[in-house]
Amino acid sequence: MDQPLLGALEAGGTKMVCATGYADGTILESSEIPTLDPGATLEQVVAWFSSHDIQALGIGAFGPTAVDPASPRFGSILETPKTAWRNVDLLGALAQPLGVPCGYDTDVNAACLGEAIFGCAQGMSDVVYLTIGTGIGAGVMVNHQLVHGMMHPEAGHILLTRDPADPIGTESGCPYHASCAEGLIAGPAIKRRWGGKRASELADDPKAMALLAGYLAQALVTYILCYSPKKIIIGGGVADHTPLVALARPRVRELLNGYLVTPEIENIDTYIVNNSLDGRQGILGCLELARRALES
Amino acid sequence: MDQPLLGALEAGGTKMVCATGYADGTILESSEIPTLDPGATLEQVVAWFSSHDIQALGIGAFGPTAVDPASPRFGSILETPKTAWRNVDLLGALAQPLGVPCGYDTDVNAACLGEAIFGCAQGMSDVVYLTIGTGIGAGVMVNHQLVHGMMHPEAGHILLTRDPADPIGTESGCPYHASCAEGLIAGPAIKRRWGGKRASELADDPKAMALLAGYLAQALVTYILCYSPKKIIIGGGVADHTPLVALARPRVRELLNGYLVTPEIENIDTYIVNNSLDGRQGILGCLELARRALES
Ligand SMILES: Nc1ncnc2c1ncn2[C@@H]1O[C@H](COP(=O)(O)OP(=O)(O)O)[C@@H](O)[C@H]1O
Ligand SMILES: Nc1ncnc2c1ncn2[C@@H]1O[C@H](COP(=O)(O)OP(=O)(O)O)[C@@H](O)[C@H]1O
Ligand SMILES: [Zn+2]
Ligand SMILES: [Zn+2]
Repeated sequence: MDQPLLGALEAGGTKMVCATGYADGTILESSEIPTLDPGATLEQVVAWFSSHDIQALGIGAFGPTAVDPASPRFGSILETPKTAWRNVDLLGALAQPLGVPCGYDTDVNAACLGEAIFGCAQGMSDVVYLTIGTGIGAGVMVNHQLVHGMMHPEAGHILLTRDPADPIGTESGCPYHASCAEGLIAGPAIKRRWGGKRASELADDPKAMALLAGYLAQALVTYILCYSPKKIIIGGGVADHTPLVALARPRVRELLNGYLVTPEIENIDTYIVNNSLDGRQGILGCLELARRALES
Repeated sequence: MDQPLLGALEAGGTKMVCATGYADGTILESSEIPTLDPGATLEQVVAWFSSHDIQALGIGAFGPTAVDPASPRFGSILETPKTAWRNVDLLGALAQPLGVPCGYDTDVNAACLGEAIFGCAQGMSDVVYLTIGTGIGAGVMVNHQLVHGMMHPEAGHILLTRDPADPIGTESGCPYHASCAEGLIAGPAIKRRWGGKRASELADDPKAMALLAGYLAQALVTYILCYSPKKIIIGGGVADHTPLVALARPRVRELLNGYLVTPEIENIDTYIVNNSLDGRQGILGCLELARRALES
Protein backbone atom coordinates (compact mmCIF):
# COMPACT_ATOMS: atom_id res chain seq x y z
CA MET A 1 0.00 0.00 0.00
CA ASP A 2 1.25 3.47 -0.82
CA GLN A 3 1.91 5.85 2.06
CA PRO A 4 -0.14 9.05 1.75
CA LEU A 5 1.89 12.05 0.67
CA LEU A 6 1.89 14.76 3.34
CA GLY A 7 2.65 18.47 3.16
CA ALA A 8 4.58 20.42 5.79
CA LEU A 9 4.81 24.20 6.00
CA GLU A 10 7.03 26.15 8.37
CA ALA A 11 5.50 29.59 8.05
CA GLY A 12 8.25 31.84 9.40
CA GLY A 13 8.59 35.60 9.60
CA THR A 14 11.37 35.64 7.01
CA LYS A 15 10.65 32.55 4.91
CA MET A 16 8.10 29.86 4.20
CA VAL A 17 9.62 26.39 4.12
CA CYS A 18 7.41 24.02 2.13
CA ALA A 19 8.04 20.30 2.07
CA THR A 20 6.45 16.99 1.18
CA GLY A 21 7.06 13.72 2.92
CA TYR A 22 5.67 10.69 4.69
CA ALA A 23 4.39 10.01 8.18
CA ASP A 24 7.58 8.12 9.05
CA GLY A 25 9.61 11.34 8.85
CA THR A 26 10.87 10.98 5.30
CA ILE A 27 11.20 14.36 3.58
CA LEU A 28 10.94 14.08 -0.20
CA GLU A 29 11.12 17.59 -1.60
CA SER A 30 11.35 21.05 -0.12
CA SER A 31 11.33 24.64 -1.24
CA GLU A 32 11.76 28.07 0.36
CA ILE A 33 9.62 31.08 -0.41
CA PRO A 34 10.47 34.48 1.13
CA THR A 35 7.83 35.88 3.47
CA LEU A 36 6.79 39.16 1.85
CA ASP A 37 3.31 40.49 1.14
CA PRO A 38 0.76 38.00 2.50
CA GLY A 39 -1.35 37.73 -0.68
CA ALA A 40 1.53 37.03 -3.06
CA THR A 41 3.43 34.85 -0.61
CA LEU A 42 0.48 32.60 0.18
CA GLU A 43 -0.37 32.32 -3.52
CA GLN A 44 3.11 30.91 -4.12
CA VAL A 45 2.76 28.52 -1.19
CA VAL A 46 -0.58 27.26 -2.49
CA ALA A 47 0.88 26.87 -5.99
CA TRP A 48 3.78 24.80 -4.66
CA PHE A 49 1.59 22.42 -2.65
CA SER A 50 -0.98 22.24 -5.49
CA SER A 51 1.70 20.89 -7.79
CA HIS A 52 2.21 18.00 -5.34
CA ASP A 53 -0.62 15.63 -4.64
CA ILE A 54 -0.68 16.02 -0.82
CA GLN A 55 -3.38 14.36 1.27
CA ALA A 56 -3.00 16.67 4.29
CA LEU A 57 -0.98 19.70 5.38
CA GLY A 58 0.68 20.54 8.70
CA ILE A 59 1.42 24.21 9.39
CA GLY A 60 3.77 25.63 12.02
CA ALA A 61 3.22 29.38 12.07
CA PHE A 62 5.07 32.36 13.49
CA GLY A 63 3.16 34.01 16.29
CA PRO A 64 1.30 35.32 17.97
CA THR A 65 -1.40 33.26 16.33
CA ALA A 66 -4.68 31.64 17.34
CA VAL A 67 -4.05 27.93 17.82
CA ASP A 68 -7.21 26.92 19.67
CA PRO A 69 -9.50 25.10 17.20
CA ALA A 70 -12.48 26.33 19.22
CA SER A 71 -11.55 29.99 18.67
CA PRO A 72 -13.35 31.92 15.92
CA ARG A 73 -9.91 33.23 14.93
CA PHE A 74 -8.28 29.77 14.76
CA GLY A 75 -5.48 29.85 12.21
CA SER A 76 -5.14 33.64 12.06
CA ILE A 77 -2.05 35.69 12.79
CA LEU A 78 -2.67 38.05 15.72
CA GLU A 79 -0.95 41.27 16.91
CA THR A 80 2.41 40.94 15.17
CA PRO A 81 4.98 43.70 14.52
CA LYS A 82 4.78 42.47 10.88
CA THR A 83 1.74 44.67 10.36
CA ALA A 84 0.90 43.37 6.86
CA TRP A 85 0.32 39.95 8.40
CA ARG A 86 -1.93 41.12 11.24
CA ASN A 87 -5.29 39.33 11.17
CA VAL A 88 -4.31 37.29 8.10
CA ASP A 89 -6.25 34.02 8.09
CA LEU A 90 -3.24 31.88 7.28
CA LEU A 91 -4.97 28.55 7.79
CA GLY A 92 -8.03 29.54 5.76
CA ALA A 93 -5.90 30.92 2.93
CA LEU A 94 -4.25 27.51 2.56
CA ALA A 95 -6.93 25.01 3.59
CA GLN A 96 -9.58 26.41 1.26
CA PRO A 97 -7.72 26.31 -2.08
CA LEU A 98 -5.85 23.11 -1.20
CA GLY A 99 -8.96 21.28 0.01
CA VAL A 100 -7.11 18.88 2.33
CA PRO A 101 -7.26 18.43 6.12
CA CYS A 102 -4.83 20.80 7.84
CA GLY A 103 -3.10 20.76 11.22
CA TYR A 104 -2.11 24.11 12.69
CA ASP A 105 0.13 25.16 15.58
CA THR A 106 2.94 27.58 16.37
CA ASP A 107 6.33 27.05 14.69
CA VAL A 108 7.91 26.34 18.08
CA ASN A 109 5.22 23.89 19.16
CA ALA A 110 5.77 22.12 15.84
CA ALA A 111 9.52 21.98 16.50
CA CYS A 112 8.83 20.62 19.99
CA LEU A 113 6.59 17.97 18.44
CA GLY A 114 9.27 17.14 15.88
CA GLU A 115 11.79 16.48 18.64
CA ALA A 116 9.26 14.47 20.67
CA ILE A 117 8.23 12.25 17.75
CA PHE A 118 11.40 11.93 15.67
CA GLY A 119 14.23 13.50 17.65
CA CYS A 120 16.10 13.47 20.92
CA ALA A 121 12.93 13.59 23.04
CA GLN A 122 11.31 10.64 21.32
CA GLY A 123 8.41 9.30 23.34
CA MET A 124 8.80 11.81 26.15
CA SER A 125 5.66 13.29 27.68
CA ASP A 126 6.96 16.68 28.85
CA VAL A 127 9.34 18.62 26.66
CA VAL A 128 10.41 22.24 26.19
CA TYR A 129 11.77 23.39 22.85
CA LEU A 130 13.45 26.79 22.87
CA THR A 131 14.63 28.70 19.84
CA ILE A 132 17.09 31.56 20.25
CA GLY A 133 17.38 33.44 16.98
CA THR A 134 15.92 36.75 15.89
CA GLY A 135 13.61 36.28 18.85
CA ILE A 136 13.10 33.67 21.55
CA GLY A 137 10.19 31.29 21.32
CA ALA A 138 9.21 28.27 23.37
CA GLY A 139 7.21 25.28 22.24
CA VAL A 140 5.98 23.15 25.10
CA MET A 141 4.57 19.67 25.44
CA VAL A 142 2.88 18.60 28.68
CA ASN A 143 1.48 15.12 29.16
CA HIS A 144 2.14 14.43 25.45
CA GLN A 145 0.03 17.44 24.40
CA LEU A 146 1.18 20.77 23.03
CA VAL A 147 0.39 23.72 25.29
CA HIS A 148 -2.06 26.35 24.04
CA GLY A 149 -4.27 27.68 26.82
CA MET A 150 -5.37 31.31 26.59
CA MET A 151 -3.20 31.79 23.47
CA HIS A 152 0.09 29.88 23.48
CA PRO A 153 3.18 30.16 25.67
CA GLU A 154 5.20 33.32 25.14
CA ALA A 155 7.97 32.16 27.40
CA GLY A 156 10.64 34.02 25.45
CA HIS A 157 9.46 37.21 27.13
CA ILE A 158 9.85 36.18 30.76
CA LEU A 159 11.58 38.85 32.80
CA LEU A 160 15.17 38.26 33.91
CA THR A 161 17.39 40.01 36.41
CA ARG A 162 19.89 42.33 34.75
CA ASP A 163 23.57 41.54 35.12
CA PRO A 164 25.21 44.75 36.43
CA ALA A 165 28.06 44.16 33.96
CA ASP A 166 25.70 44.23 30.99
CA PRO A 167 26.66 47.04 28.56
CA ILE A 168 23.28 46.99 26.79
CA GLY A 169 21.94 50.20 28.35
CA THR A 170 18.48 50.91 29.69
CA GLU A 171 16.68 49.52 26.67
CA SER A 172 16.90 45.99 25.35
CA GLY A 173 16.35 44.14 22.09
CA CYS A 174 12.64 43.82 22.91
CA PRO A 175 10.45 46.85 22.31
CA TYR A 176 8.10 45.83 25.14
CA HIS A 177 10.41 44.77 27.95
CA ALA A 178 13.70 46.23 29.13
CA SER A 179 14.74 42.94 30.71
CA CYS A 180 13.03 39.97 29.08
CA ALA A 181 14.92 36.92 27.85
CA GLU A 182 14.35 37.78 24.20
CA GLY A 183 15.40 41.36 24.80
CA LEU A 184 18.65 40.32 26.50
CA ILE A 185 19.72 37.16 24.65
CA ALA A 186 18.37 37.05 21.08
CA GLY A 187 20.03 38.36 17.91
CA PRO A 188 18.95 42.01 18.20
CA ALA A 189 20.27 42.25 21.79
CA ILE A 190 23.60 40.89 20.62
CA LYS A 191 23.77 43.35 17.72
CA ARG A 192 22.86 46.20 20.06
CA ARG A 193 25.61 45.46 22.56
CA TRP A 194 28.45 44.45 20.32
CA GLY A 195 28.48 46.85 17.37
CA GLY A 196 26.13 44.99 15.08
CA LYS A 197 27.91 41.66 15.43
CA ARG A 198 26.15 38.33 15.03
CA ALA A 199 26.31 35.75 17.78
CA SER A 200 28.62 33.51 15.74
CA GLU A 201 31.24 36.27 15.67
CA LEU A 202 31.23 36.37 19.49
CA ALA A 203 31.43 32.63 20.04
CA ASP A 204 35.07 32.97 21.13
CA ASP A 205 34.54 36.02 23.34
CA PRO A 206 34.40 34.60 26.88
CA LYS A 207 32.96 37.76 28.45
CA ALA A 208 30.14 38.03 25.94
CA MET A 209 29.38 34.32 26.20
CA ALA A 210 29.39 34.41 30.01
CA LEU A 211 26.92 37.29 30.05
CA LEU A 212 24.56 35.55 27.64
CA ALA A 213 24.94 32.16 29.35
CA GLY A 214 24.00 33.72 32.68
CA TYR A 215 20.79 35.09 31.20
CA LEU A 216 20.01 31.84 29.41
CA ALA A 217 20.53 29.95 32.69
CA GLN A 218 18.07 32.24 34.45
CA ALA A 219 15.48 31.52 31.78
CA LEU A 220 16.16 27.77 31.87
CA VAL A 221 15.75 27.65 35.64
CA THR A 222 12.33 29.25 35.27
CA TYR A 223 11.32 26.75 32.58
CA ILE A 224 12.54 23.84 34.70
CA LEU A 225 10.62 25.05 37.77
CA CYS A 226 7.45 25.91 35.85
CA TYR A 227 7.14 23.09 33.33
CA SER A 228 9.10 20.34 35.10
CA PRO A 229 10.10 19.05 31.66
CA LYS A 230 11.90 15.76 31.02
CA LYS A 231 14.14 17.46 28.48
CA ILE A 232 14.90 20.97 27.25
CA ILE A 233 16.02 21.29 23.62
CA ILE A 234 17.53 24.48 22.29
CA GLY A 235 17.72 25.50 18.65
CA GLY A 236 17.87 28.74 16.65
CA GLY A 237 20.74 30.66 15.06
CA VAL A 238 22.19 32.07 18.28
CA ALA A 239 22.30 28.72 20.09
CA ASP A 240 23.44 26.82 16.99
CA HIS A 241 26.46 29.02 16.33
CA THR A 242 27.79 29.49 19.87
CA PRO A 243 28.70 27.34 22.90
CA LEU A 244 25.85 28.91 24.89
CA VAL A 245 24.01 25.71 25.76
CA ALA A 246 27.13 24.10 27.24
CA LEU A 247 28.02 27.31 29.10
CA ALA A 248 24.54 27.68 30.56
CA ARG A 249 24.42 24.20 32.15
CA PRO A 250 26.71 24.85 35.16
CA ARG A 251 25.02 28.20 35.68
CA VAL A 252 21.65 26.47 35.87
CA ARG A 253 22.97 24.25 38.64
CA GLU A 254 24.38 27.24 40.50
CA LEU A 255 21.06 29.04 40.37
CA LEU A 256 19.04 25.98 41.44
CA ASN A 257 21.55 25.63 44.29
CA GLY A 258 20.70 22.02 45.07
CA TYR A 259 16.99 22.66 45.21
CA LEU A 260 15.81 20.08 42.68
CA VAL A 261 17.14 16.58 43.22
CA THR A 262 16.26 14.48 40.18
CA PRO A 263 18.18 12.11 37.92
CA GLU A 264 17.62 14.56 35.05
CA ILE A 265 19.29 17.48 36.84
CA GLU A 266 22.12 15.19 37.89
CA ASN A 267 22.67 14.35 34.23
CA ILE A 268 22.32 17.90 33.02
CA ASP A 269 24.35 17.27 29.84
CA THR A 270 21.58 15.06 28.50
CA TYR A 271 18.83 17.16 30.07
CA ILE A 272 19.55 20.52 28.45
CA VAL A 273 20.69 19.89 24.89
CA ASN A 274 21.12 21.42 21.47
CA ASN A 275 18.49 20.36 18.96
CA SER A 276 18.80 17.11 17.10
CA LEU A 277 17.58 16.29 13.58
CA ASP A 278 20.04 18.68 11.86
CA GLY A 279 17.66 21.59 12.18
CA ARG A 280 14.74 19.72 10.64
CA GLN A 281 12.75 19.55 13.93
CA GLY A 282 10.34 22.24 12.75
CA ILE A 283 9.47 20.78 9.37
CA LEU A 284 9.26 17.25 10.80
CA GLY A 285 6.87 18.50 13.46
CA CYS A 286 4.72 19.99 10.69
CA LEU A 287 4.75 16.60 8.96
CA GLU A 288 3.46 15.05 12.18
CA LEU A 289 0.75 17.74 12.38
CA ALA A 290 -0.27 16.72 8.83
CA ARG A 291 -0.35 13.04 9.80
CA ARG A 292 -2.59 13.85 12.76
CA ALA A 293 -4.89 16.00 10.60
CA LEU A 294 -5.27 13.13 8.16
CA GLU A 295 -6.03 10.63 10.92
CA SER A 296 -8.65 12.69 12.69
CA MET B 1 -28.97 4.12 43.96
CA ASP B 2 -26.60 5.18 46.71
CA GLN B 3 -23.64 7.37 45.78
CA PRO B 4 -20.33 5.76 46.76
CA LEU B 5 -18.72 7.33 49.82
CA LEU B 6 -15.36 8.86 48.96
CA GLY B 7 -12.42 9.83 51.16
CA ALA B 8 -10.31 12.97 50.73
CA LEU B 9 -6.99 13.66 52.42
CA GLU B 10 -5.10 16.92 52.30
CA ALA B 11 -1.75 15.80 53.62
CA GLY B 12 -0.09 19.06 54.63
CA GLY B 13 3.16 19.83 56.38
CA THR B 14 1.38 21.05 59.51
CA LYS B 15 -1.90 19.12 59.46
CA MET B 16 -3.74 16.27 57.78
CA VAL B 17 -7.26 17.21 56.77
CA CYS B 18 -9.40 14.08 56.41
CA ALA B 19 -12.88 14.21 54.92
CA THR B 20 -15.62 12.08 53.47
CA GLY B 21 -18.02 13.08 50.75
CA TYR B 22 -19.56 12.39 47.40
CA ALA B 23 -18.45 12.85 43.81
CA ASP B 24 -20.75 15.86 43.41
CA GLY B 25 -18.63 17.87 45.87
CA THR B 26 -20.66 17.25 49.00
CA ILE B 27 -18.45 17.09 52.10
CA LEU B 28 -20.05 15.02 54.88
CA GLU B 29 -17.56 14.89 57.73
CA SER B 30 -14.06 16.15 58.26
CA SER B 31 -11.33 15.97 60.86
CA GLU B 32 -7.87 17.46 61.37
CA ILE B 33 -4.86 15.54 62.60
CA PRO B 34 -1.57 17.37 63.30
CA THR B 35 1.34 16.30 61.10
CA LEU B 36 3.90 14.98 63.57
CA ASP B 37 5.88 11.73 63.48
CA PRO B 38 5.00 9.89 60.23
CA GLY B 39 4.22 6.52 61.84
CA ALA B 40 1.84 7.82 64.48
CA THR B 41 0.26 10.43 62.21
CA LEU B 42 -0.50 7.98 59.41
CA GLU B 43 -1.88 5.46 61.90
CA GLN B 44 -4.40 8.08 63.02
CA VAL B 45 -5.29 8.90 59.43
CA VAL B 46 -5.83 5.23 58.60
CA ALA B 47 -7.94 4.82 61.75
CA TRP B 48 -10.14 7.78 60.80
CA PHE B 49 -10.81 6.57 57.27
CA SER B 50 -11.24 2.95 58.46
CA SER B 51 -14.09 4.06 60.65
CA HIS B 52 -15.88 5.36 57.54
CA ASP B 53 -16.81 2.98 54.79
CA ILE B 54 -15.02 4.78 51.93
CA GLN B 55 -14.86 3.23 48.46
CA ALA B 56 -11.84 5.24 47.29
CA LEU B 57 -9.39 7.83 48.61
CA GLY B 58 -7.92 10.94 47.00
CA ILE B 59 -4.68 12.30 48.46
CA GLY B 60 -3.18 15.75 47.94
CA ALA B 61 0.29 15.67 49.46
CA PHE B 62 2.85 18.27 50.44
CA GLY B 63 5.92 18.10 48.26
CA PRO B 64 8.28 17.42 46.85
CA THR B 65 6.71 14.06 46.17
CA ALA B 66 6.68 11.50 43.36
CA VAL B 67 3.42 11.90 41.46
CA ASP B 68 4.20 9.91 38.31
CA PRO B 69 2.38 6.54 38.56
CA ALA B 70 5.14 5.02 36.41
CA SER B 71 7.84 5.95 38.93
CA PRO B 72 9.06 3.27 41.37
CA ARG B 73 8.77 5.95 44.08
CA PHE B 74 5.16 6.94 43.18
CA GLY B 75 3.44 8.20 46.29
CA SER B 76 6.57 8.81 48.34
CA ILE B 77 7.69 12.07 49.88
CA LEU B 78 11.06 13.14 48.44
CA GLU B 79 13.80 15.56 49.65
CA THR B 80 11.82 17.65 52.14
CA PRO B 81 13.19 19.85 54.93
CA LYS B 82 10.80 17.84 57.18
CA THR B 83 13.46 15.17 57.51
CA ALA B 84 11.29 12.63 59.36
CA TRP B 85 9.04 12.50 56.28
CA ARG B 86 11.82 12.00 53.74
CA ASN B 87 11.26 8.86 51.68
CA VAL B 88 8.04 8.04 53.52
CA ASP B 89 5.77 5.99 51.26
CA LEU B 90 2.68 8.02 52.02
CA LEU B 91 0.48 6.41 49.39
CA GLY B 92 1.52 2.87 50.35
CA ALA B 93 1.01 3.53 54.04
CA LEU B 94 -2.61 4.45 53.34
CA ALA B 95 -3.58 2.33 50.32
CA GLN B 96 -2.44 -0.95 51.85
CA PRO B 97 -4.33 -0.90 55.15
CA LEU B 98 -7.38 0.81 53.64
CA GLY B 99 -7.56 -1.52 50.64
CA VAL B 100 -9.37 0.95 48.36
CA PRO B 101 -8.29 2.58 45.08
CA CYS B 102 -6.32 5.75 45.74
CA GLY B 103 -5.60 8.85 43.69
CA TYR B 104 -2.45 10.77 44.47
CA ASP B 105 -1.12 14.19 43.51
CA THR B 106 0.41 17.28 45.08
CA ASP B 107 -1.71 19.39 47.42
CA VAL B 108 -1.54 22.31 44.99
CA ASN B 109 -2.45 20.21 41.96
CA ALA B 110 -5.42 18.93 43.98
CA ALA B 111 -6.44 22.51 44.78
CA CYS B 112 -6.13 23.42 41.11
CA LEU B 113 -8.32 20.46 40.23
CA GLY B 114 -10.83 21.49 42.89
CA GLU B 115 -11.15 24.95 41.34
CA ALA B 116 -11.36 23.48 37.81
CA ILE B 117 -14.08 20.97 38.70
CA PHE B 118 -16.11 22.72 41.38
CA GLY B 119 -14.88 26.30 41.62
CA CYS B 120 -14.26 29.48 39.70
CA ALA B 121 -12.38 27.72 36.88
CA GLN B 122 -15.11 25.16 36.24
CA GLY B 123 -14.64 23.46 32.91
CA MET B 124 -11.49 25.39 32.01
CA SER B 125 -8.67 23.52 30.30
CA ASP B 126 -5.67 25.56 31.46
CA VAL B 127 -5.52 26.82 35.03
CA VAL B 128 -2.86 27.90 37.52
CA TYR B 129 -3.53 27.64 41.25
CA LEU B 130 -1.06 29.46 43.47
CA THR B 131 -0.88 29.26 47.23
CA ILE B 132 1.02 31.90 49.18
CA GLY B 133 1.36 30.81 52.76
CA THR B 134 4.29 29.36 54.66
CA GLY B 135 5.70 28.68 51.21
CA ILE B 136 4.57 29.25 47.65
CA GLY B 137 3.30 26.34 45.60
CA ALA B 138 1.73 26.15 42.17
CA GLY B 139 -0.70 23.54 40.89
CA VAL B 140 -1.11 23.60 37.16
CA MET B 141 -3.60 22.17 34.70
CA VAL B 142 -2.80 22.12 30.99
CA ASN B 143 -5.23 20.75 28.42
CA HIS B 144 -7.43 19.50 31.31
CA GLN B 145 -4.55 17.47 32.78
CA LEU B 146 -2.50 18.18 35.88
CA VAL B 147 1.17 18.86 35.19
CA HIS B 148 3.76 16.42 36.50
CA GLY B 149 6.64 15.92 34.08
CA MET B 150 10.07 15.23 35.59
CA MET B 151 8.65 15.70 39.12
CA HIS B 152 5.97 18.40 39.43
CA PRO B 153 6.09 22.16 38.99
CA GLU B 154 8.05 24.01 41.67
CA ALA B 155 7.02 27.38 40.35
CA GLY B 156 7.12 28.98 43.79
CA HIS B 157 10.89 29.07 43.51
CA ILE B 158 11.23 31.02 40.26
CA LEU B 159 13.79 33.78 40.55
CA LEU B 160 12.60 37.38 40.73
CA THR B 161 14.38 40.69 40.41
CA ARG B 162 15.02 42.34 43.77
CA ASP B 163 13.33 45.63 44.47
CA PRO B 164 16.12 48.05 45.56
CA ALA B 165 13.80 49.29 48.33
CA ASP B 166 13.47 45.82 49.85
CA PRO B 167 14.72 45.82 53.48
CA ILE B 168 15.05 42.01 53.58
CA GLY B 169 18.88 41.93 53.36
CA THR B 170 21.05 39.60 51.33
CA GLU B 171 19.27 36.46 52.42
CA SER B 172 15.61 35.65 51.87
CA GLY B 173 12.95 33.44 53.39
CA CYS B 174 14.11 30.53 51.20
CA PRO B 175 17.22 28.66 52.31
CA TYR B 176 18.09 27.84 48.68
CA HIS B 177 17.51 31.07 46.79
CA ALA B 178 18.23 34.66 47.78
CA SER B 179 15.63 35.98 45.35
CA CYS B 180 12.94 33.40 44.61
CA ALA B 181 9.23 34.16 44.84
CA GLU B 182 8.78 32.02 47.96
CA GLY B 183 11.83 33.60 49.55
CA LEU B 184 10.55 37.12 48.93
CA ILE B 185 6.77 36.86 49.32
CA ALA B 186 5.75 33.97 51.59
CA GLY B 187 5.19 34.07 55.35
CA PRO B 188 8.83 33.64 56.46
CA ALA B 189 9.98 36.52 54.21
CA ILE B 190 7.33 38.75 55.74
CA LYS B 191 8.33 37.78 59.26
CA ARG B 192 11.98 38.37 58.43
CA ARG B 193 11.43 41.90 57.12
CA TRP B 194 8.83 43.22 59.48
CA GLY B 195 9.83 42.09 62.97
CA GLY B 196 8.04 38.76 63.04
CA LYS B 197 4.72 40.15 61.87
CA ARG B 198 2.22 38.09 59.95
CA ALA B 199 0.93 39.23 56.58
CA SER B 200 -2.49 40.07 58.01
CA GLU B 201 -0.91 42.62 60.36
CA LEU B 202 0.61 44.40 57.36
CA ALA B 203 -2.52 44.47 55.24
CA ASP B 204 -2.93 48.21 55.89
CA ASP B 205 0.73 49.10 55.38
CA PRO B 206 0.86 50.50 51.83
CA LYS B 207 4.64 50.32 51.53
CA ALA B 208 4.80 46.69 52.60
CA MET B 209 1.90 45.76 50.36
CA ALA B 210 3.41 47.57 47.36
CA LEU B 211 6.68 45.74 47.77
CA LEU B 212 4.99 42.35 47.98
CA ALA B 213 2.55 43.13 45.16
CA GLY B 214 5.45 44.04 42.88
CA TYR B 215 7.08 40.69 43.51
CA LEU B 216 3.81 38.82 43.10
CA ALA B 217 3.23 40.63 39.79
CA GLN B 218 6.65 39.55 38.56
CA ALA B 219 5.80 35.94 39.36
CA LEU B 220 2.35 36.19 37.77
CA VAL B 221 3.79 37.60 34.55
CA THR B 222 6.09 34.61 34.33
CA TYR B 223 3.21 32.19 34.90
CA ILE B 224 1.08 33.96 32.29
CA LEU B 225 3.87 33.86 29.71
CA CYS B 226 4.88 30.26 30.45
CA TYR B 227 1.56 28.51 31.01
CA SER B 228 -0.79 30.76 29.03
CA PRO B 229 -3.51 29.88 31.54
CA LYS B 230 -7.17 30.81 31.16
CA LYS B 231 -7.33 31.75 34.83
CA ILE B 232 -4.95 32.20 37.77
CA ILE B 233 -6.37 31.50 41.21
CA ILE B 234 -4.54 32.52 44.37
CA GLY B 235 -5.06 31.05 47.82
CA GLY B 236 -3.04 30.59 51.00
CA GLY B 237 -2.84 32.55 54.23
CA VAL B 238 -0.83 35.49 52.90
CA ALA B 239 -3.13 36.09 49.92
CA ASP B 240 -6.30 35.42 51.91
CA HIS B 241 -5.54 37.99 54.62
CA THR B 242 -4.22 40.88 52.52
CA PRO B 243 -5.26 42.88 49.42
CA LEU B 244 -2.24 41.49 47.51
CA VAL B 245 -4.15 39.96 44.61
CA ALA B 246 -5.96 43.21 43.83
CA LEU B 247 -2.74 45.20 44.22
CA ALA B 248 -0.80 42.88 41.92
CA ARG B 249 -3.20 43.18 38.96
CA PRO B 250 -2.21 46.65 37.73
CA ARG B 251 1.44 45.80 38.27
CA VAL B 252 1.03 42.74 36.02
CA ARG B 253 -0.28 44.98 33.26
CA GLU B 254 2.60 47.41 33.73
CA LEU B 255 5.14 44.63 33.43
CA LEU B 256 3.49 43.06 30.38
CA ASN B 257 3.48 46.56 28.89
CA GLY B 258 0.88 45.80 26.24
CA TYR B 259 2.63 42.69 25.03
CA LEU B 260 -0.23 40.19 25.38
CA VAL B 261 -3.49 41.26 23.80
CA THR B 262 -6.19 38.82 24.89
CA PRO B 263 -9.69 39.18 26.30
CA GLU B 264 -8.47 37.61 29.54
CA ILE B 265 -5.75 40.21 30.11
CA GLU B 266 -8.22 42.94 29.25
CA ASN B 267 -10.49 41.61 31.98
CA ILE B 268 -7.74 41.10 34.49
CA ASP B 269 -10.10 41.31 37.50
CA THR B 270 -11.69 38.01 36.47
CA TYR B 271 -8.42 36.57 35.18
CA ILE B 272 -6.31 36.80 38.33
CA VAL B 273 -8.54 36.03 41.29
CA ASN B 274 -8.63 34.96 44.91
CA ASN B 275 -9.68 31.36 45.43
CA SER B 276 -13.33 30.41 45.49
CA LEU B 277 -15.00 27.59 47.44
CA ASP B 278 -14.29 29.16 50.86
CA GLY B 279 -10.89 27.55 51.10
CA ARG B 280 -12.22 24.08 50.34
CA GLN B 281 -10.53 23.87 46.91
CA GLY B 282 -7.88 21.48 48.20
CA ILE B 283 -10.15 18.98 49.89
CA LEU B 284 -12.64 19.09 46.99
CA GLY B 285 -9.81 18.40 44.56
CA CYS B 286 -8.90 15.37 46.67
CA LEU B 287 -12.51 14.21 46.46
CA GLU B 288 -12.26 14.45 42.66
CA LEU B 289 -9.01 12.45 42.77
CA ALA B 290 -10.92 9.79 44.73
CA ARG B 291 -13.74 9.79 42.17
CA ARG B 292 -11.24 9.30 39.37
CA ALA B 293 -9.46 6.50 41.23
CA LEU B 294 -12.77 4.71 41.68
CA GLU B 295 -13.68 5.11 38.00
CA SER B 296 -10.39 3.85 36.58
N1 LIG C 1 26.34 32.29 11.75
C1 LIG C 1 25.04 32.62 11.86
N2 LIG C 1 24.20 32.38 10.85
C2 LIG C 1 22.91 32.74 10.94
N3 LIG C 1 22.38 33.35 12.00
C3 LIG C 1 23.18 33.59 13.03
C4 LIG C 1 24.52 33.23 13.02
N4 LIG C 1 25.05 33.59 14.20
C5 LIG C 1 24.09 34.16 14.87
N5 LIG C 1 22.95 34.18 14.21
C6 LIG C 1 21.73 34.78 14.69
O1 LIG C 1 20.60 33.95 14.56
C7 LIG C 1 19.47 34.74 14.21
C8 LIG C 1 18.67 33.96 13.21
O2 LIG C 1 18.12 32.89 13.91
P1 LIG C 1 17.31 31.75 13.25
O3 LIG C 1 16.92 30.82 14.30
O4 LIG C 1 18.15 31.18 12.14
O5 LIG C 1 16.10 32.49 12.55
P2 LIG C 1 14.80 33.21 13.12
O6 LIG C 1 14.89 33.35 14.57
O7 LIG C 1 14.83 34.53 12.41
O8 LIG C 1 13.69 32.32 12.66
C9 LIG C 1 19.97 36.08 13.72
O9 LIG C 1 19.45 37.06 14.59
C10 LIG C 1 21.46 36.02 13.88
O10 LIG C 1 21.94 37.09 14.66
N1 LIG D 1 -4.37 36.02 59.74
C1 LIG D 1 -3.67 34.99 59.36
N2 LIG D 1 -3.99 33.74 59.71
C2 LIG D 1 -3.25 32.69 59.32
N3 LIG D 1 -2.17 32.80 58.57
C3 LIG D 1 -1.79 34.00 58.15
C4 LIG D 1 -2.53 35.15 58.50
N4 LIG D 1 -1.92 36.20 57.94
C5 LIG D 1 -0.87 35.73 57.31
N5 LIG D 1 -0.76 34.42 57.42
C6 LIG D 1 0.34 33.66 56.85
O1 LIG D 1 -0.10 32.51 56.16
C7 LIG D 1 0.80 31.43 56.40
C8 LIG D 1 -0.01 30.18 56.53
O2 LIG D 1 -0.51 29.95 55.25
P1 LIG D 1 -1.52 28.79 54.96
O3 LIG D 1 -1.81 28.85 53.51
O4 LIG D 1 -2.69 28.93 55.87
O5 LIG D 1 -0.77 27.48 55.38
P2 LIG D 1 0.48 26.67 54.81
O6 LIG D 1 1.13 27.48 53.75
O7 LIG D 1 1.37 26.50 56.00
O8 LIG D 1 -0.12 25.41 54.32
C9 LIG D 1 1.63 31.79 57.60
O9 LIG D 1 2.99 31.85 57.19
C10 LIG D 1 1.19 33.17 58.00
O10 LIG D 1 2.27 34.06 58.07
ZN1 LIG E 1 9.97 40.99 25.66
ZN1 LIG F 1 13.48 29.23 46.67
